Amino acid sequence: MHIELINTGSELLLGQTSNTHQAWIAKQLSAAGYSLSYQCTVSDTGPAIQGALSEALKRADLILVTGGLGPTSDDRTRDFLAELIQRPLHKSEKVVEHIRSYFERRGKVMPERVTIQAMVPEGATCLMNAFGTAPGLLIPLDPNPFREGEKPAWIVMFPGPPRELHPMFRDQFMPWLNETLPLETPFAYRILRTSGLGESWVEERLSPKLQGLVEAGLDIGYCARSGEVDIRFIASCSDADAIVTEAAEVAYEDLGDLIYGEGEASLESALVAACREKRIKIALAESCTGGYIAHRITNVPGASDVLHTGVVSYANEAKQRVLQVSSDTLEKHGAVSEASAREMVVGTLKCSGADLALSVTGIAGPSGGSEEKPVGTVFMAVADSSGTHIVRKLNPYDRETFKFVTANQGLEMLRRKALGLTLDE
Amino acid sequence: MHIELINTGSELLLGQTSNTHQAWIAKQLSAAGYSLSYQCTVSDTGPAIQGALSEALKRADLILVTGGLGPTSDDRTRDFLAELIQRPLHKSEKVVEHIRSYFERRGKVMPERVTIQAMVPEGATCLMNAFGTAPGLLIPLDPNPFREGEKPAWIVMFPGPPRELHPMFRDQFMPWLNETLPLETPFAYRILRTSGLGESWVEERLSPKLQGLVEAGLDIGYCARSGEVDIRFIASCSDADAIVTEAAEVAYEDLGDLIYGEGEASLESALVAACREKRIKIALAESCTGGYIAHRITNVPGASDVLHTGVVSYANEAKQRVLQVSSDTLEKHGAVSEASAREMVVGTLKCSGADLALSVTGIAGPSGGSEEKPVGTVFMAVADSSGTHIVRKLNPYDRETFKFVTANQGLEMLRRKALGLTLDE
Repeated sequence: MHIELINTGSELLLGQTSNTHQAWIAKQLSAAGYSLSYQCTVSDTGPAIQGALSEALKRADLILVTGGLGPTSDDRTRDFLAELIQRPLHKSEKVVEHIRSYFERRGKVMPERVTIQAMVPEGATCLMNAFGTAPGLLIPLDPNPFREGEKPAWIVMFPGPPRELHPMFRDQFMPWLNETLPLETPFAYRILRTSGLGESWVEERLSPKLQGLVEAGLDIGYCARSGEVDIRFIASCSDADAIVTEAAEVAYEDLGDLIYGEGEASLESALVAACREKRIKIALAESCTGGYIAHRITNVPGASDVLHTGVVSYANEAKQRVLQVSSDTLEKHGAVSEASAREMVVGTLKCSGADLALSVTGIAGPSGGSEEKPVGTVFMAVADSSGTHIVRKLNPYDRETFKFVTANQGLEMLRRKALGLTLDE
Repeated sequence: MHIELINTGSELLLGQTSNTHQAWIAKQLSAAGYSLSYQCTVSDTGPAIQGALSEALKRADLILVTGGLGPTSDDRTRDFLAELIQRPLHKSEKVVEHIRSYFERRGKVMPERVTIQAMVPEGATCLMNAFGTAPGLLIPLDPNPFREGEKPAWIVMFPGPPRELHPMFRDQFMPWLNETLPLETPFAYRILRTSGLGESWVEERLSPKLQGLVEAGLDIGYCARSGEVDIRFIASCSDADAIVTEAAEVAYEDLGDLIYGEGEASLESALVAACREKRIKIALAESCTGGYIAHRITNVPGASDVLHTGVVSYANEAKQRVLQVSSDTLEKHGAVSEASAREMVVGTLKCSGADLALSVTGIAGPSGGSEEKPVGTVFMAVADSSGTHIVRKLNPYDRETFKFVTANQGLEMLRRKALGLTLDE
């Protein structure tokens, strides 16, 4: 099945708004075994919208369109579509009633112009909008004069605001899709997530072992992002589930606990889950990551069961006064050193009373490096009652990536320590 | 000039990765007077990439392509393009050398397969990758056989990782664009940034005063995002510079120090600049923002001159042990209270020895609210040797937005305190 997505909105092409619909919709479809073949963004003008629609109609069985259904003068997607497929628009009394009651419930008078949202192309079915006024529209095109052989197509239009689109998509559109356009072949996919490994290294290890499954229909993708590599297994065939399951087993057998989670998991969510399970409270002493590790951990619901204290000891004085790092150590070895990392982590454990602590000290750059300790040098230490483990890393990236990669390494060290896994490289 | 963007990557169509390139690239182009006419996302396959390229080549003067230049088996964008436009690929020794030294600097052996990234289509110029291995490619197509009249086109390919693409785009591609495909009419663009004001309030104040400039060609945009309002002035005409300069003067006269910066300025960069100027060292005590304020401040180059200490006092025990908040206060008023915010800020100032401190304590939700203190309630305090100032806010949003809005309010309080501006609402 060929599915395309058209996002309308000039603001998307000016960079004023991020296109969050693409990833959100793609994810909903993927999770149900459907997938997008193509996505495009066009401005709010007639030629742009009609051009994109007529191109999509040449190829697609299902076209999803977002935006431009509202009441303002730049909301013309519905009109341009109706003109293109030559369907007259009729005012739906049911939709007018819905809009009227929407305003009534809010104690407001309905402006006459908002009833323009009740104009429905002939033959379309409305998806009522539980969180707004513009309905979604299910429009069958059978025959579809734009496509070779006039093979039928569906056009489905959604309002642009995410808080209106999301529930409409999930609760009304997806059940309709499953019933109206059921999958032809079984589909399975799984994403395994790793951190701290190289993309080529992962591929070289796994690919030979998965060759047989690839021949049986497995599709493998390696997606690398600043020190993280996702391994994506997809199959679309009668034994899709078995193939993907077997591929995942091969990966786990080979990589084991280097895989920290699947799908939506993040390093921080894996850490929070591990610490909640083991009832471990953690404390952080961040120098070069500047609070970013604490920020990521506290983004996870349930973090308050796990994160005890964080200290951002940016100034040397902070390391001395709050964490009790000795001035002798700072003078003799410098703030970025194994000795400082050690005293920081021990001081953090002591001043907080937590069970497990991490310290991070490094040179983010662009300046501050030396031959012995170039920009990107990081010392990290984890400590608990059983002792302290220190590593040295080199992350010579821009400031943002430096923080991201360093935080990943720190989160992974904490996760491994919390789970009692080996910390050697 | 017709510019199109093609984002390649099956992960984008599966919803595993958000397409951040679209908004980022669109913004860079807009700020320089260029604009995107069309954007699309295609999978990593040959038919998809070649189909999108040949469609774009029918219409566009400039086609930007992201992704698929890396060393793994699904990185085939370069090959598919070369095949489509019938250009042989040659190995560039300069690029091989760049990749080799990239690995050497990291003390790693270069795997042979990564040199595939040095394959360059005939006639292309390389943009060296300062933060990775795959070069960008500038490829002239003159004549362009895909377009009516064979009007020439440029195809520019960028590596997918943002930390590689961003500097390459900004530092190499934009200067090339300005020189190779200059704008036809003068263009001026300025964004003034405010925080904590309402969009309608700003618009109602400024619009009447700017009416004359609008008639002369000024385009005004008000862009609101979670508690921030940007005022965007654009002109594209012979006296564009003068018009935009005058508009900015009108805005400064009216809003004064409510404008914290321009363009890429952020609240945190404005704060760091203010504190550097006044030689003020700051300390933070974050509870509900969980290190996010420290993270934002330490994203700013030069933050080490300003940020002294941050404490993420997530657990009550952290508030007591590190910040010396009394158990009596926590018991009687709760951790989210004016009294706790006061003791936190005073404790932070004392334990760190900084000049100026901020404390933040609140209820992020979704649970934990009460009738007296609903979800979203925040107490914030700033303190220096002259005394303490406390405010109460209500930010009833999802976790991420809550952190963002609360951090903005805290950063703006610190900025105003550092500059000696009034803190009253």
